[in-house]
Amino acid sequence: MYSVLKRLLIGSPLSSQRLGEQRLTKRVALAVFGTDAIASTAFATQEILVVLVPAAGMAALDDLVPISLVVIALLVIVTASYRQTLYAYPNGGGSYIVSRENLGTGPSLVAAASLMVDYTLTVSVSIAAGVAAITSAFPAWHLSRVELSLGFLAFLAIGNLRGIRESGQIFFLPTYFFIAGMALLIVVGAVKVLGGDVPVAQSAASAIVPNEMVPLSIFVILRAFANGCTALTGIEAISNGVPAFKPPEARNAAITLILMITCAVIMFMGVTLLAGAYHIVPHNEETVISQLNRAVFGGRGAMYYAIQAGTTLILVLAANTAFSDFPRLASIVAKDRFLPRQFANRGDRLAFSNGIMVLSLLAAILLIAFGGDTHRLIPLYMLGVFVSFTLSQLGMVLKWRREKKWGWRVGAFVNGLGATLTAIVLIVVSVTKFSEGAWIIIVLIPLIVMHFVAINRHYSRVAKQLSLKGLTLSDTKHNTVIVPIGGVHRAVVQALDYARTLSADVRAIYVDVDPVATKEVNDLWATWGRGVRLEILASPFRSVMAPLLEYIEITNDERPDDFITVLLPEFVPARWWHHLLHNQRALLIKGALLFRRNIVVTSVPYHLES
Amino acid sequence: MYSVLKRLLIGSPLSSQRLGEQRLTKRVALAVFGTDAIASTAFATQEILVVLVPAAGMAALDDLVPISLVVIALLVIVTASYRQTLYAYPNGGGSYIVSRENLGTGPSLVAAASLMVDYTLTVSVSIAAGVAAITSAFPAWHLSRVELSLGFLAFLAIGNLRGIRESGQIFFLPTYFFIAGMALLIVVGAVKVLGGDVPVAQSAASAIVPNEMVPLSIFVILRAFANGCTALTGIEAISNGVPAFKPPEARNAAITLILMITCAVIMFMGVTLLAGAYHIVPHNEETVISQLNRAVFGGRGAMYYAIQAGTTLILVLAANTAFSDFPRLASIVAKDRFLPRQFANRGDRLAFSNGIMVLSLLAAILLIAFGGDTHRLIPLYMLGVFVSFTLSQLGMVLKWRREKKWGWRVGAFVNGLGATLTAIVLIVVSVTKFSEGAWIIIVLIPLIVMHFVAINRHYSRVAKQLSLKGLTLSDTKHNTVIVPIGGVHRAVVQALDYARTLSADVRAIYVDVDPVATKEVNDLWATWGRGVRLEILASPFRSVMAPLLEYIEITNDERPDDFITVLLPEFVPARWWHHLLHNQRALLIKGALLFRRNIVVTSVPYHLES
Repeated sequence: MYSVLKRLLIGSPLSSQRLGEQRLTKRVALAVFGTDAIASTAFATQEILVVLVPAAGMAALDDLVPISLVVIALLVIVTASYRQTLYAYPNGGGSYIVSRENLGTGPSLVAAASLMVDYTLTVSVSIAAGVAAITSAFPAWHLSRVELSLGFLAFLAIGNLRGIRESGQIFFLPTYFFIAGMALLIVVGAVKVLGGDVPVAQSAASAIVPNEMVPLSIFVILRAFANGCTALTGIEAISNGVPAFKPPEARNAAITLILMITCAVIMFMGVTLLAGAYHIVPHNEETVISQLNRAVFGGRGAMYYAIQAGTTLILVLAANTAFSDFPRLASIVAKDRFLPRQFANRGDRLAFSNGIMVLSLLAAILLIAFGGDTHRLIPLYMLGVFVSFTLSQLGMVLKWRREKKWGWRVGAFVNGLGATLTAIVLIVVSVTKFSEGAWIIIVLIPLIVMHFVAINRHYSRVAKQLSLKGLTLSDTKHNTVIVPIGGVHRAVVQALDYARTLSADVRAIYVDVDPVATKEVNDLWATWGRGVRLEILASPFRSVMAPLLEYIEITNDERPDDFITVLLPEFVPARWWHHLLHNQRALLIKGALLFRRNIVVTSVPYHLES
Repeated sequence: MYSVLKRLLIGSPLSSQRLGEQRLTKRVALAVFGTDAIASTAFATQEILVVLVPAAGMAALDDLVPISLVVIALLVIVTASYRQTLYAYPNGGGSYIVSRENLGTGPSLVAAASLMVDYTLTVSVSIAAGVAAITSAFPAWHLSRVELSLGFLAFLAIGNLRGIRESGQIFFLPTYFFIAGMALLIVVGAVKVLGGDVPVAQSAASAIVPNEMVPLSIFVILRAFANGCTALTGIEAISNGVPAFKPPEARNAAITLILMITCAVIMFMGVTLLAGAYHIVPHNEETVISQLNRAVFGGRGAMYYAIQAGTTLILVLAANTAFSDFPRLASIVAKDRFLPRQFANRGDRLAFSNGIMVLSLLAAILLIAFGGDTHRLIPLYMLGVFVSFTLSQLGMVLKWRREKKWGWRVGAFVNGLGATLTAIVLIVVSVTKFSEGAWIIIVLIPLIVMHFVAINRHYSRVAKQLSLKGLTLSDTKHNTVIVPIGGVHRAVVQALDYARTLSADVRAIYVDVDPVATKEVNDLWATWGRGVRLEILASPFRSVMAPLLEYIEITNDERPDDFITVLLPEFVPARWWHHLLHNQRALLIKGALLFRRNIVVTSVPYHLES
């Protein structure tokens, strides 16, 4: 049942040899790794307006463009910086790897923790924003946001468990559909504006601009800028995923990165300019894109719905960036023994299944906890992103300085500029978003790092204990086989048959709690005991366990260096509920002996038919 | 930790030899088995009034006495009937045993199911009524009824897990305290009435008697009578518990039965007469006893609180009757293989621990589901009681007729009269209480019986499969020992050491998922392989499981009648959470091989230190 369902959802297993085949072309890679960066245009403008409008009212639109331009400048510098990382780390140069190599273990763990937080929030924020695009089109669904979000999340999780190549195929069309739709929206909108045909967006007319204006302080402008920096998220996705590209990997990845950022910048600027021209005011239950969409195409028509659908799809699929990267990062960290090794195993379909499942679970928790609301998730989002940006670029600077390759000064300057700027953004975000939720991340990242360290310490200790160094081989040991019995029947006879193959020293143990039953066992033993010695133990307290454990203890003390095997005849019932009808004594005995050295407890299964 | 807590709550284990010591004197037995019957006087009168007053208003008090007299007549006849059962079944003559011997398996299972339902409801109803006595005294606690009830339930469960003798000690004083208190209440009340000093109870003056009177139909009178029959509950308790008495068991039990019923009748009649004289009207938040208590002793004084406390104690302890009988019945039914055999085991303290725990759980569910409300539980209560009464007495009639001992005609007449009357009450209760909840029990009893039958069928099939009849002993078999390894380290070397004690045919299996690691294992094998053959299996799908299982399958097919032992080196971490850091492959392999014949899977524990 379980495996049929698994095959149906996940598909048949794939051979390891197909790992090479699963490489991505640039066009597909843009869809797989680029959605996050491109899709953030769907909410970056809005997030700036959300801060500005309550403060400055319609006058806010005047500040929108300058702030956006600063964000774009930042975006271009960080892209240039990451382009260098691609070439420097053709095997995948995520922040973790770059930090590990150049900054040492401590900073690399901070980078890993930040990235994992970042990926989890990418999933949650993107899905929440995708659902917001739907509920803008269908306001009646506003109350079902969380359910819709979880539905999309499940869809993504299953898609990714099926494996990376097929993911690319699923995400190819929607990405290009969104790009085309946005291009059309911007072009049509721009033509109308240039033609002087600028209808005021319906929401702008009806929006309730707060009476009490917050003065447009530096703090407000910084908060708006911090929000606008969501547009930078996703830049690093490609640098983590270089090995997934077709060869030449680094070159293809670099081209894809430039393509991706070009798309992102055009869309972000286009939406921003049009939002200003159409006097769009952010609204709780309708996104800025939806308002713009309605204004440009004159209400909810076919084009409107097509673009909303495209927005939803790209946003939900943007979450997929994280589904490619989180499990891959977790597998690298696990190989370095800072995460449980299960994250390093590829599943049946060549995907890192455990990472995908953990990511899905964490994102689901976030979506539920924050009610599927983009605005409430955004403050948590940025911090992890900018910590990893800063560390990664700082690492690149040190790498340049160490290696002193041709042109290292320019390279170091570009990365250094990027690092400085992202560090400044990091401080801005930490301060302006602290009370809105950023504090959670500030607490969380050190906690995660502590866990990394604890896990690593455990693995080191285990490795030391398992090391063969200094081990001297012993002679063949003696094995005393003890078979506790509760009567004489076929399961016991089978266990004795088995016991006799193991050792010449086999002892059956019966605990006397009822003289009549004991006599019966003794009588049957002559016929069925197979020459095995039967020892009968007294039990004043009716406990079967205590005398048995005591016997094992004494036997162990006699030959402390040799083995004892405790063989338990155990029923395997045909139906699970039949377990309730049999004593679970085997479990108790196993539990009691688990921590004893040189004692092995074995169940000899006896299969019941019904 | 767990065992320290257990010792503290339950006490040290008791030797089986002390089973004889744990016998009860008549005085103690009255407290242990009699509380149910005696305590029912605390609500029987009230339950009659609850039906009558809404129908007839204050005129209802006129019908209270005749109905009560009919109930008392019934009580006396059933007592006479059960007195005969005591003598006929000195080893404990519960309805189950009497039915089993005289009516056959089917009726005995109905009796067992009815009794188990009855005992569970005894616990719930008595505790709910006990808490009602408290909340009558402290009306502010009315809303915490469920919490209070669960507290008392936990107290009883722990007391009973400690063992029966100590239970007797705990329950001795409260029972006699209640009897004394009620005697005082009745005497003082009667003296006042005879002296013409009859204050109208406060509640009677303030009670709101419904405007719309239901006509006092036969149906209403029957419903009132049915409710009054709660006074009969608990009669059978002593007949189930005869072996717990000091010798001569039957005689002591019979004397205790007469004492118990005398107390019960006097109190029931006393309360009924006084309730009439004081014009007491039932009230949602105050019991009849509490009202009477206030009227007789002039408000809430020291005497009032003492009697309320006594009432609470006796009622809560009445639940204890069921705590003595349910586990004992379950153990008898389990010995007959109609219940899981775990119910037949006595615990450390000679009590049937599993029965006590199941009873506590069921009673807790009832208390929570019915909000700890006596009135809502009563309709469910009576049915089980009267089914078992009827079956038990019918069984006695057949026994008399079969054995034809001296005086059998009189004996059969007494039991027959009892059976007929209780059968009539059973019909009255079923009809008048059907829609108030009795239907639940009418559905439940057949369901329980079906489970008894299914359990019995399972045990019969198992016994047949385990039977030694026709078994031919085989020669010593071959044992192929397979040791799957994931590398070469101390845990593997230890497993090989162990494997070599088991068989000359040992094979280590390594699944090749990474050529580099495979080469390393091969190189190390020369030094550490201990002469064991190493087989390396290819795995195109990276699965470690599939090639391994296939290898085991092939090996098994070569010698299908011989044994295969799969030895798994398994880490035993020092802390539970370390389990998360290691692959749980052993579990998967065990699961996959669980249903294969002649294959034994053994974990060789390797103990990690930290």
